[in-house]
Amino acid sequence: MTDIIEGRNPVIEALKSGRPISKILVNRNIGSHQTVAAILSLAQERGIPVEYVDEHVIKRHSSTGAGQGLIAYAAAKEYMSLDDLISISKEKNEPALYCILDGIEDPHNLGAILRTADATGFHGVIVRSRRAVGLTAAVAKASAGAVEYVPVARVVSISQAIEILKKNGVWIVGIDMSGEMDYSKMDFTPPTAIVIGGEGKGLSALVKKRCDLVAFIPMKGKISSLNASVAAAVVMYEALRQRSK
Amino acid sequence: MTDIIEGRNPVIEALKSGRPISKILVNRNIGSHQTVAAILSLAQERGIPVEYVDEHVIKRHSSTGAGQGLIAYAAAKEYMSLDDLISISKEKNEPALYCILDGIEDPHNLGAILRTADATGFHGVIVRSRRAVGLTAAVAKASAGAVEYVPVARVVSISQAIEILKKNGVWIVGIDMSGEMDYSKMDFTPPTAIVIGGEGKGLSALVKKRCDLVAFIPMKGKISSLNASVAAAVVMYEALRQRSK
Repeated sequence: MTDIIEGRNPVIEALKSGRPISKILVNRNIGSHQTVAAILSLAQERGIPVEYVDEHVIKRHSSTGAGQGLIAYAAAKEYMSLDDLISISKEKNEPALYCILDGIEDPHNLGAILRTADATGFHGVIVRSRRAVGLTAAVAKASAGAVEYVPVARVVSISQAIEILKKNGVWIVGIDMSGEMDYSKMDFTPPTAIVIGGEGKGLSALVKKRCDLVAFIPMKGKISSLNASVAAAVVMYEALRQRSK
Repeated sequence: MTDIIEGRNPVIEALKSGRPISKILVNRNIGSHQTVAAILSLAQERGIPVEYVDEHVIKRHSSTGAGQGLIAYAAAKEYMSLDDLISISKEKNEPALYCILDGIEDPHNLGAILRTADATGFHGVIVRSRRAVGLTAAVAKASAGAVEYVPVARVVSISQAIEILKKNGVWIVGIDMSGEMDYSKMDFTPPTAIVIGGEGKGLSALVKKRCDLVAFIPMKGKISSLNASVAAAVVMYEALRQRSK
């Protein structure tokens, strides 16, 4: 299976991460640009063929329509098993930090969450296989390349994944308006997984029941919820802040 | 001038905020839904005409293509002058909190930032008139209705707006990778405006030079920047956290 990676940042991150790439297409009029020069130099180093084509060829192969004059063909980014994901934080010898997504459907949001997960040192993201977006080209683009670095496990049942994490000593914290505690009053230093609900839906009742604690993000205004990637980021950065002390 | 407000949440927020609405179009097969029922009841109360139409009529009038079976025609949402925006926090008798956007182009990001500004009690958002997205229908939709509540001033020059804010005793904090101080170590209790750069560009050199201080958000991973609305939210929630103590 082949993935098309679109845009300068995603392509350079894929190259840097060592992901196998079979070919790069470049708009012949792309002009000089620092990132493009770095891509071409890395491609030459690794012997990856580069083809110079007209912009319409790039557009035709781009699924997001925003290839920025450059796309690459790569082996598909694979999901990790939940077991492998759990073993990562064990190997790192750090208290686990996971982000569980209970039905995120918007590629912009999943991309932004992967970016934040990379930035905050989260060990992995767990997504649902049904009624949720997966690691698509649009997600890779919105992630600015973070999809190459953040381990993602895809599970059939979020509830089951929560039970497995609990058995591994991970504290499960749902984030929801109905929460009983302000997220910033929580202790994020023990092994923790935060659970973020889907856009406009929040956490499902079933998942909420499995959480050890449900925390809320204070809302001082008239709107009742935040964008899903914003909610995730606010909690993830609070975890990083506490762990950096 | 008329604005089309698309989707259930934006329409109900427009109704709740008292914004003048001339007509609501509803998909005749929309079915029963709590928010829809609330919209229809508010419309009846205010004597706003409701027309039941086929879905394709809604789609035709929807600029985002995601009207969720319901759109409303409203007077255009107006920008505020910078002076009026400054007087808001004075009237509230609270130390000012503003978010200045130096060239946000993605409607998803501006919408999410307005949503966060409402939630964190920021007094207003300042946007640039050139090479930046304004208060479009797509932004209103992404804001989940927050566009109705958050005062937005549009200025020709961000640098000039910064000078005016400084004269009003507001401390200007740029957020950029090149910053000299961790955002979470800053004191957000005095009157403060944070400045967020455009997607993929960061703060312009000119604007950076005018800031009293440039702060960074720590990035522990391999990616060098966050999504713009995520970066704004992380700082805005830190300001709220400090002020809630």
